[in-house]
Order: sequence, then structure tokens, then C-alpha cells
Amino acid sequence: MSPQQLAVWSEAVLSRVEAALSAWVPTSAPAGLGEAMRYGVLDGGKRLRALLVQAAAEAAGATATEAGCEAALRAACAVELIHAYSLVHDDMPCMDNDVLRRGKPTVHVAFGEAQAMLAGDAMQALAFEVLTPDEGEGAGVPPVLQARLVRILARASGQGGMAGGQAIDLASVGQALDEATLRDMHRRKTGALLRASVQMGAACGGLQADSIAWQALTAYGHAMGLAFQIVDDVLDATQPSDTLGKTAGKDADANKPTYVSLLGLDGARQEADALLAQALSALSRSGLADAALQPLTDLAHRIVHRDH
Amino acid sequence: MSPQQLAVWSEAVLSRVEAALSAWVPTSAPAGLGEAMRYGVLDGGKRLRALLVQAAAEAAGATATEAGCEAALRAACAVELIHAYSLVHDDMPCMDNDVLRRGKPTVHVAFGEAQAMLAGDAMQALAFEVLTPDEGEGAGVPPVLQARLVRILARASGQGGMAGGQAIDLASVGQALDEATLRDMHRRKTGALLRASVQMGAACGGLQADSIAWQALTAYGHAMGLAFQIVDDVLDATQPSDTLGKTAGKDADANKPTYVSLLGLDGARQEADALLAQALSALSRSGLADAALQPLTDLAHRIVHRDH
Repeated sequence: MSPQQLAVWSEAVLSRVEAALSAWVPTSAPAGLGEAMRYGVLDGGKRLRALLVQAAAEAAGATATEAGCEAALRAACAVELIHAYSLVHDDMPCMDNDVLRRGKPTVHVAFGEAQAMLAGDAMQALAFEVLTPDEGEGAGVPPVLQARLVRILARASGQGGMAGGQAIDLASVGQALDEATLRDMHRRKTGALLRASVQMGAACGGLQADSIAWQALTAYGHAMGLAFQIVDDVLDATQPSDTLGKTAGKDADANKPTYVSLLGLDGARQEADALLAQALSALSRSGLADAALQPLTDLAHRIVHRDH
Repeated sequence: MSPQQLAVWSEAVLSRVEAALSAWVPTSAPAGLGEAMRYGVLDGGKRLRALLVQAAAEAAGATATEAGCEAALRAACAVELIHAYSLVHDDMPCMDNDVLRRGKPTVHVAFGEAQAMLAGDAMQALAFEVLTPDEGEGAGVPPVLQARLVRILARASGQGGMAGGQAIDLASVGQALDEATLRDMHRRKTGALLRASVQMGAACGGLQADSIAWQALTAYGHAMGLAFQIVDDVLDATQPSDTLGKTAGKDADANKPTYVSLLGLDGARQEADALLAQALSALSRSGLADAALQPLTDLAHRIVHRDH
């Protein structure tokens, strides 16, 4: 696709995701909880995880059926809910103590710490609720697929994935991490959820875990997970806060290790390019049709060459 | 059962649950996260939710098959993980700021606030992981049952259940809540998870949501959820901290409304007895065999007549 076509494709996906999130994140939750949840997840960010779910779902043929489309939409919203809850908790004073996120005051600044913690907790539960609709609700996502999506997302979110990576991050402030530990941290902290996004899309298309296509898409997700973080570190070191919509240079200020502090700017950029090549090579080995792979291909370029 | 038989039954259930939790809550999680999770969930409390899952599973005939036993064990551990995470977060300084829980320092006192928040987050994810084992893992819980258990637990945990109730609780400090609002708060905050425990056990036995038995067990769970909280308020007002293993009288000190402040001690006790009668009446309408209902019957008496 041309950059313009990718923009049109993204916009169509994101308007569906935004509408679904707005419908599923309740206005009716009691005592202001719904407002805090909506503030934390709606109108938010680049929605890269949602785009990866949808792109992988298209690659795997999920979007040929109504149930596949519905499953991909639910998976996209669920992974965005998990990502958003992690940001809400990560921004709190006992963690990163950040006051600015996506150009707005963070949730605990706007709603108080207790409500922010509860909103994050409720967003995590909602992610798993969205993945397990009642029979007859929506377009009938088969229970076997529901269970598989929960399995992928729960593993990527918990101690073996995102939460585990955050624990390493916590423990690493002021430490001289070696490259292997830094990679392990990011593989879990951001990589696990990005890879899970691709895997959930692939599962929506019915790809089995022992298939060549599944393994290729998983390798793509793994490479993109790392590349995303490396580019994030490069941007954090080179772009001003108002471009990023969050406080720039925080990790360096907190003496946290980053790919830039470890590899230097040029080294980090080269590593990101190498991972892009790996990801594209994985796609070419997948056995899936080139046309169906186009969104994943284009997203890989966009992830590595983005400027915010 | 005699009180002694109930004690033997409980001990057998809880030793299985404790062993499974110890196996599933990882020692290997990075950077101390596993230790914080284990500290928060192992050796913990009365395990009432786990007992309700198992009792309802026996009532519904789940324990006749290996897969049913495995499903009930996973559901029991999952609901205990959710309950334990909610306590870890609830005890934090931005919420109840409690330093004592089950006679030990709370998780944030022992491990720091950031690790406590992460441990709670990871415990919630682990609950859903435990419910969705790989094919071939364990005794083969059918995916359709996996999805159903996730559906029940996620709804009971999130904004429509526990987290929503906590939000009302937060907003209620120093407020003159009327009885209807107090009931709504508790129906969500503690009632939803207790009812979900009974429903998960019933689902493990394959009871369908439109069956008389399902509806009877749900009514039992609903009544016990409320009764549990009322008795909790009575004990909080009448027992010393060392009997309870937590700081007594906190709610009254914080000027939070309780059933005792609203109904008086005698009124609260009468209400608990009325709910016990409702729960037993629901069981008698369930159409399930008296012998199979015995654990649920005995637990109902124990919940209402406990002294700590």
C-alpha cells in the first residue's frame, strides 16, 4: 500500500475499534469509575496493538467471516484495554510518577490515585470480559476461540510477560544492565503484548500453533516487539515532549538503561533496521498470500520509521 | 455433616487448592515479583471462595469426572487469586492504607508500593491464565467451559462487580448512605465474587444458565454474598484485631457506613439469619440431591455463625 492507503486502512480499523471501545467501556459504572476508565482508554494513542491484531487477522483470513471479524475486533479492543490499564498504573506516583500522557493529565492526576488504581484493575477485567461474550451476543465468536484468545492475552499480560517486564524495569533503576537483561526486560514489558496482538489476529483466522504460518507471524511479532521499543528509546532521546505527547527523556533522567544508552543512537537505529528485515523475512516464509500480508508489511515499516 | 466432618472436608479441599496455587504462582517470576505474588496469595485466609466453588461443583455433579475436578480446582484457585489481588490493592496507601492483613504486614509494607501494585496486576492476569490451560495441560478442561468460567469471573471482578463496588466504597467515606446504596455497594464489592464462586462450581458440573438448579444456586450465592458482608460488619464491630487478623473497627473509624451503623447490631444479626434461611430455601428448590448439597448447606451455616 502507499502511505496514503495505509492511512485509509488504519483510519477504518481505528474508527471501528474506537466505536467498540466506547460501547464496551461503560458510562454506567458507579461512582465515577466509568469516567476514569473511559478517560484512560478512549481517544488514545496510535493503537498499534489494535492495528497489529487486525493486520494479522487479515493475513490469516479471519476477516472472510462475520465471526472472524467480530473476534478480531474484540481482540483488538481487549489488547488496547490491557495496554491502557498498564499505562494508568505505570504513571502512578509509586511507579513512574508521570503527569502527562498523550498530551493530557494522567488518570491519577485527573481522578485521584485510588480511582486510577481501580480503573486500571477494572480495565484489565473488562479486557477478558470483552473476549468472552455470551452465546448470541455479537456475531458468535466460538468458545474455543474465546478461550484461546484469553490464554494468549493473559500469558502476555502477567508475570511471564508485561508485568514481569515492569518488575525488572522497577528493579533496574540506577543499575548497569547488560544487553541480555535489557532485551529480556523489553521482550516482556512491551514485546509480549505486541507479539500477542499478532498471535491473537492469527488465532482469529484459525491458524494452529504448529503451522508454519503461525510460527512466521509469531517471529514477525517478536521482531516488531523489540524494534518498537528500540525506536521508542531513540525517539525519547531525540524528540521534544510536545511531539511525543508525554514527558521526553524521562528514562535517561531516571538513570534507567535504554537501548540508546547501551548501543548509542546509531547502533540502536541499525538494530531496529535489522529487526525490520527479520520481520519481513518471516512474513515471506509464512506461505500466506502477499496481498493479505500487505498491512503487516506496511505496519512493520511504519513502526521502525515513525517519528513520534 | 457434623462440624468435624465439615472441617475434614474443608481441609482436604484447601490442601489441594494450596498445593495448586503454590505450583501455579511462580517462584520464577522476575525481580522479586513472584515472591510478592506468593506472599499475597499463599497461606491466606479462610479460602471461603474456593470452598464455595468446590461445594457448588459437588452439588452440580462436577466431581464425577476428572475434567470436572480439574476445572473446579482451577476455578477455586482463580477466584482466590482475584480476591487476593483485590486485598493487595485495597490495602495500599491510596486506598485503605492498611498495614496488617491475616496477621502479617501487608504486601506493600513488605515489598514496597510499586511491587505490590504490579503483584496485584499479575495476580489478576494469572487468574485468567489458570482458567485457560493449553490443550493437553491438566486433565483437559473443555474450551467451552474455560470460556464460560472466564466470562463469569471477569464480569464479577470488573466495573459491574467487585471494582465497581470498591468505587462506591471510595466515594462513600463520610457519606450518609441509605440502605439501598449500601446493599448495592456490597452486592458488587464482595457479593459478586462470592456468587461467582458458586456459579463457577455449578458451571463445572455443566448446569445450564436456564436450569432450575442454576437459578437456585445463584440465589444461594446471592444471599450468602450479602450475609457474609453483614457478618463481617458485625465481627468488625465486636471482635478485637488479634482475633480477626486485621485491624478491627477501621470502617467505623473512617466513618464508613456499615450494616451495623445502619441496622444496629441486633438488626444486622437478624438480617444475616434471614439470608441464611433464604439460601437454604433456595437449595431445597434446586432439585439436586440432599447429600450432594450438604457442603453448601454446611458452608451457609458456617458463614453466618462464624466468629472470625
